[in-house]
Amino acid sequence: MTFASPNHHPVDPAKLEKLAEVAVKVGLQLQKNQDLVITAPVVSMPLVRLITREAYKAGAGLVTTFYSDEETTLARYEYGHDGSFDRASNWLYEGMAKAYANNAARLAISGDNPMLLSGQEPAKVARANRANSAAYKPALEKISNFDINWNIVSYPNPSWAKLVFPDDPEAIAVAKLAKAIFAASRVDVPDPIGAWAEHNANLHKRSTWMNGQRFAALHFQGPGTDVKIGLADGHEWHGGASVAKNGVTCNPNIPTEEVFTTPHALRVEGYVSSTKPLSHQGTLIDNIRVRFEGGRIVEAKASRGEEVLNKVLDTDEGARRLGEVALVPHSSPISASGILFYNTLFDENASCHIALGQCYSKCFIDGATLSQEQIKAQGGNSSLIHIDWMIGSDKVDIDGIKLDGSRMPVMRGGEWA
Amino acid sequence: MTFASPNHHPVDPAKLEKLAEVAVKVGLQLQKNQDLVITAPVVSMPLVRLITREAYKAGAGLVTTFYSDEETTLARYEYGHDGSFDRASNWLYEGMAKAYANNAARLAISGDNPMLLSGQEPAKVARANRANSAAYKPALEKISNFDINWNIVSYPNPSWAKLVFPDDPEAIAVAKLAKAIFAASRVDVPDPIGAWAEHNANLHKRSTWMNGQRFAALHFQGPGTDVKIGLADGHEWHGGASVAKNGVTCNPNIPTEEVFTTPHALRVEGYVSSTKPLSHQGTLIDNIRVRFEGGRIVEAKASRGEEVLNKVLDTDEGARRLGEVALVPHSSPISASGILFYNTLFDENASCHIALGQCYSKCFIDGATLSQEQIKAQGGNSSLIHIDWMIGSDKVDIDGIKLDGSRMPVMRGGEWA
Repeated sequence: MTFASPNHHPVDPAKLEKLAEVAVKVGLQLQKNQDLVITAPVVSMPLVRLITREAYKAGAGLVTTFYSDEETTLARYEYGHDGSFDRASNWLYEGMAKAYANNAARLAISGDNPMLLSGQEPAKVARANRANSAAYKPALEKISNFDINWNIVSYPNPSWAKLVFPDDPEAIAVAKLAKAIFAASRVDVPDPIGAWAEHNANLHKRSTWMNGQRFAALHFQGPGTDVKIGLADGHEWHGGASVAKNGVTCNPNIPTEEVFTTPHALRVEGYVSSTKPLSHQGTLIDNIRVRFEGGRIVEAKASRGEEVLNKVLDTDEGARRLGEVALVPHSSPISASGILFYNTLFDENASCHIALGQCYSKCFIDGATLSQEQIKAQGGNSSLIHIDWMIGSDKVDIDGIKLDGSRMPVMRGGEWA
Repeated sequence: MTFASPNHHPVDPAKLEKLAEVAVKVGLQLQKNQDLVITAPVVSMPLVRLITREAYKAGAGLVTTFYSDEETTLARYEYGHDGSFDRASNWLYEGMAKAYANNAARLAISGDNPMLLSGQEPAKVARANRANSAAYKPALEKISNFDINWNIVSYPNPSWAKLVFPDDPEAIAVAKLAKAIFAASRVDVPDPIGAWAEHNANLHKRSTWMNGQRFAALHFQGPGTDVKIGLADGHEWHGGASVAKNGVTCNPNIPTEEVFTTPHALRVEGYVSSTKPLSHQGTLIDNIRVRFEGGRIVEAKASRGEEVLNKVLDTDEGARRLGEVALVPHSSPISASGILFYNTLFDENASCHIALGQCYSKCFIDGATLSQEQIKAQGGNSSLIHIDWMIGSDKVDIDGIKLDGSRMPVMRGGEWA
């Protein structure tokens, strides 16, 4: 077995093995006889092979991997005829949805070039994304409804590494990104499984504290930001490991540093500025500034990618309202690394953030038993999209506001108060 | 774009491009707006990328590739628990069947290590194969019924190359196998598309001549072989390009040198010896000797892989009867190369061969209009398997026998008479 990536960049094989072990044992808690569906960029093959091995060691039924390839994605934009951009692999996603309905676990490896499609015609990108999102819906619903245990981990794809470390030669960039991924994923310690148990306990402590406060709203104040984000009625804070509807406790995101809940779709007032650029499906959107009235974004600007941002906001009515608010201390290990990853899985865990679009039903008390109507009545937003963007920094203060109007400091200068 | 395989073996990029062009334009004749599903070993990624590019140039709707990986196949055997060996990706194959039902074309890249599973427990291999075959059935039926245009081409996988050229270092073995694949696939000439048009015309001339003779049986005689193979009533010979039920003319196999038809399931008498080893799903079966009575194999021996051969024959009743007989001159370019490929796509096109199991409905006059019952009544065999094995050599003579008992030489010393 070779541990080199297809482009022969050295990635520490021992740490990669630990990442595979953490993905299977902590991320998925894969059950005996449970099938596993992996989606991954083809350059991440060395990690896929190790995860497959770990999965079979853990008693997996069958492991099936679907690889994507940046080269063939680009070939479609370069050579594809116009009609191609409204097509999607419905048969594949419907199949995946069926696998999840039969209790297959799902593991995604993240690591695509965040700028892959930045040179392509935005209208074609938007059409292809729309067709793909619509086709993917049956599979995504099983994941966002948390029907099964699922996990995302990352692999240092060279094209991603070169964006994060543009001044380094590719091999050095890959090595640096690998090191950052291993650190953020807590596999650079002697006992990663133990470290994750401790980390999950800390995140649970934070979410339990937040749940005890029963805040009605959070007030964010910082440079370019002054917004009151109302929380949904009966909202519940979550963080760290969580129980899927199939009964399996898993860590969907590796890394994770956030505690998060559902805001009220109609109760957001004020203005917010992003503190990190957002990479959205291959396009970079930077310096986002939006204004909310009655929970709805009524004005949106960006110094870069404004056209794409406004297309995103026009997806549906729910795309202009919030589906998530998340708290991450500025001193989180990912933030402390000082690295801008251009990858939401990392950047959202380096900063407080909000998400446009669909809310998580699990972020309600007894969420699994609530109907769509009940969730909506309690303030839960619904949309085809769920896009996180970063609004935290060491200059942001957050107050919790209770129903009686009393205030309590939650974060000061980006740290838990 | 890199043309190097993940293991950095140099494969002539210009020839690989021509192979991709031939696969799309001759093999598939991919239609504008037609989707394409590719299945391929992950080491053949350089060819997949070129084929994807050609497909989009030809106006493809969407190209979707499903990669397999020998390393993860082996990981299952090394680490998988017992229950894993009865599992298959039903959701994936059902999805593919759906894609074919929606007129997606299918391209398979062949090149897996023919001995991949030779060190594994035969019972586990058999269970995994059985589960996979059953799951694959809905997709395979669309292909074997010729509902859509489909094609197989090959890529010089290093593990395959090392088996074919065991005495060479890996890089040399890959280069030699690549050269042999390019020659057999007729892409080492200045005008491959023209060469295929001429080759298809020659194969059509042969099959037209055979159809004009209306032989009732073929009599094969050679060392270890003396068998009369009755032909199905209303059989039709085919060779070269052929029209799929979706109306597209395609070349399913690249290379192809055979003209072939359906034998009569009940009318085979005598004994046959194989002239080349057969690689069947990762196991090698050599020196096959079988005896037919009333079309049925009543005795089967092999110097290697006899246990696997007998398991295969026990698959179902049709597995002991013939579904295909094919004529290939001993002087075919593949045979002339003197290379034993351990890969049916090549070895069957270097030698006359027969196939155990399922017949092709297209090898009947008006085959597309015949019911399963009619096909059976005319002598067509049915089975879950279709396994070709080689019985031709320069020492084999073939006579055609007409209904009135008169004989005509068809081949002498392995060549057309």
